[in-house]
Amino acid sequence: MVAQWVNSADSHVLEPLDLWRRELPPSMRERGPVVETVDDREVVYIDAKVVRRDPVAFMDAIRPPGAEDPVQRLADLDDQGIWAELIFPSRALWVHLSDDAALQLACSQVYNDWLYDEFMTRSGRFIGAAMLPVLDTGDAVRELQRNVARGFETVFLPTATPAGREYNREEWKPLWAAAAEAGISLSFHIGTGADPKVYRGPGGAITNHVVSFYGAQTTLCHLVASGVLEEHPGLHVSFVESGGSWLPAVMERMDEAQRQYGGWFLRPKLPLLPSEYVKRQVHVSFQHGRAALAVMGITGLSALMWGSDYPHLEGTYPNTQAVLAQIFDGVSDDVRAAITGGNFAKLFTIPERVAA
Amino acid sequence: MVAQWVNSADSHVLEPLDLWRRELPPSMRERGPVVETVDDREVVYIDAKVVRRDPVAFMDAIRPPGAEDPVQRLADLDDQGIWAELIFPSRALWVHLSDDAALQLACSQVYNDWLYDEFMTRSGRFIGAAMLPVLDTGDAVRELQRNVARGFETVFLPTATPAGREYNREEWKPLWAAAAEAGISLSFHIGTGADPKVYRGPGGAITNHVVSFYGAQTTLCHLVASGVLEEHPGLHVSFVESGGSWLPAVMERMDEAQRQYGGWFLRPKLPLLPSEYVKRQVHVSFQHGRAALAVMGITGLSALMWGSDYPHLEGTYPNTQAVLAQIFDGVSDDVRAAITGGNFAKLFTIPERVAA
Repeated sequence: MVAQWVNSADSHVLEPLDLWRRELPPSMRERGPVVETVDDREVVYIDAKVVRRDPVAFMDAIRPPGAEDPVQRLADLDDQGIWAELIFPSRALWVHLSDDAALQLACSQVYNDWLYDEFMTRSGRFIGAAMLPVLDTGDAVRELQRNVARGFETVFLPTATPAGREYNREEWKPLWAAAAEAGISLSFHIGTGADPKVYRGPGGAITNHVVSFYGAQTTLCHLVASGVLEEHPGLHVSFVESGGSWLPAVMERMDEAQRQYGGWFLRPKLPLLPSEYVKRQVHVSFQHGRAALAVMGITGLSALMWGSDYPHLEGTYPNTQAVLAQIFDGVSDDVRAAITGGNFAKLFTIPERVAA
Repeated sequence: MVAQWVNSADSHVLEPLDLWRRELPPSMRERGPVVETVDDREVVYIDAKVVRRDPVAFMDAIRPPGAEDPVQRLADLDDQGIWAELIFPSRALWVHLSDDAALQLACSQVYNDWLYDEFMTRSGRFIGAAMLPVLDTGDAVRELQRNVARGFETVFLPTATPAGREYNREEWKPLWAAAAEAGISLSFHIGTGADPKVYRGPGGAITNHVVSFYGAQTTLCHLVASGVLEEHPGLHVSFVESGGSWLPAVMERMDEAQRQYGGWFLRPKLPLLPSEYVKRQVHVSFQHGRAALAVMGITGLSALMWGSDYPHLEGTYPNTQAVLAQIFDGVSDDVRAAITGGNFAKLFTIPERVAA
């Protein structure tokens, strides 16, 4: 019995092990995401580089059948009381660590085609984010447009880019313009685009988990401070799995910088305060954090979206309704409805729910 | 007429231009912090490396006479309604960018001696943070002990360290033990220990201002996750000029990581939740941010300390009382008293205030 149906702004599919070996052009076949088990570790490679080495038992804990099977997945959604969900990849999360532009594009195309065929055509409840390559803006624009043409309403971009291609750079402008023109939003999933293992030694696992959200903070700054959100006032941007409670700190620091550097270093000079762009166009997703609710008066209600992060351990599966009850204990119905579904429904086209 | 006297957990002195040229051993004289005016820019060097290039007009705006003169400074404090203040350097903020351990030590000694002689011996309202070098733990321990012996109650450490010497490493353990044994606190001032100009291009000034607080987040993680705060339950740690509103996000993410990785990657395994160490031993200073007050229910009241950041532009000088009135509008007297002075007074010995 579902207490209240919600939408998830953050979910993951698990791509078939052989997807890229099967679908990439022959010359690239061994260079897409590859998974091998070595001793008790599952090792993920992209372009022959090791990007993850996780215990098999840990990986087993985050791949329920619904992660890869659309029919089982709909059953899981029903069971958890999730109606629609925004879908990100699993193994393809690391494609942006390749420094080969053609490979990034080809891997993105393979993933997007598979996601479209296997999930999006099965149910409108599966809302895919089309993965874009980041080394060539022309490639990114074309892949965006190819996917918008068949109904994708957002694109997945990593929160880190190679040095010299940060999101404040001129060379990204055609992509922002293409997204704005298409009327779709940008979705930046945290922990992507850079080696996730930054720190070693005592406490490294906790520290690496925390610092994986810096990319969201930096990307937000780039988009606000360089004028992207000023230039495209209808362009919405989501930071996925970042949590929600960091947002006021970045809003405050951006505003502080604009006040302090008013007469000096600002280029461009923005007509609004940075925090005003955030309130107008930015969204962040969180799974558990009640801290996000404490700062709603600063971020605005529309900035906050709940996400299940299915099927990951930091997510709410298989206890979604219990977690929701805990997070929203004592929170008004309209606030809960906006954060767990209403804000999401303003960004995406969701099929009407009919009783089973 | 001062509405309410406060203590500032974040203030800066301006060291004499020729301090290091005058006081360093002859072989190092030209390698301490040096300032030269080139065209309309004031260029700061350490060990012949350029670390800042700021417009002269910008620098002029942040050096009122009280920045360098103790008598004028006391008058400024009286005028602003600030009783005691924790003092950090200005030009010496960049000493940690030298990769010469002996030079870092010598520059620290010169600064600490000057601060002690020129300010701390003049008034107990000047509470100095003794600068420590970071390339050799033995040097740091000895400089800590030398300054504790003459009454310093905290040390200034940068929020970034060279790769391989992060604060979670074993080699720092003697310093944490020395601080705990001496009963003093650690003060990490943000924006130090790494090149402050990370990003270039549009919006870079705002983005660089924001990202300068990542070091505080990372350092907090290192100290909590590696078990430093577990091992030394009486050791208090302050993050200065970091703002206060980021703290709940890091507390939540650390707790999330501990929950999620419980059976896997955690080393050491901590008996408490990371957020519990924060509530017990961690403090953050902010100048304006009302967001910090919104999250007090999560951080705990003792975590928050106000600071003026005198004489910087992001600080409250010369409008301290007006800023305080705005921040604490509608806030209860006991909360205001704790944040603007009471929490500070638990960390430092403050002379009794007598009516002028």
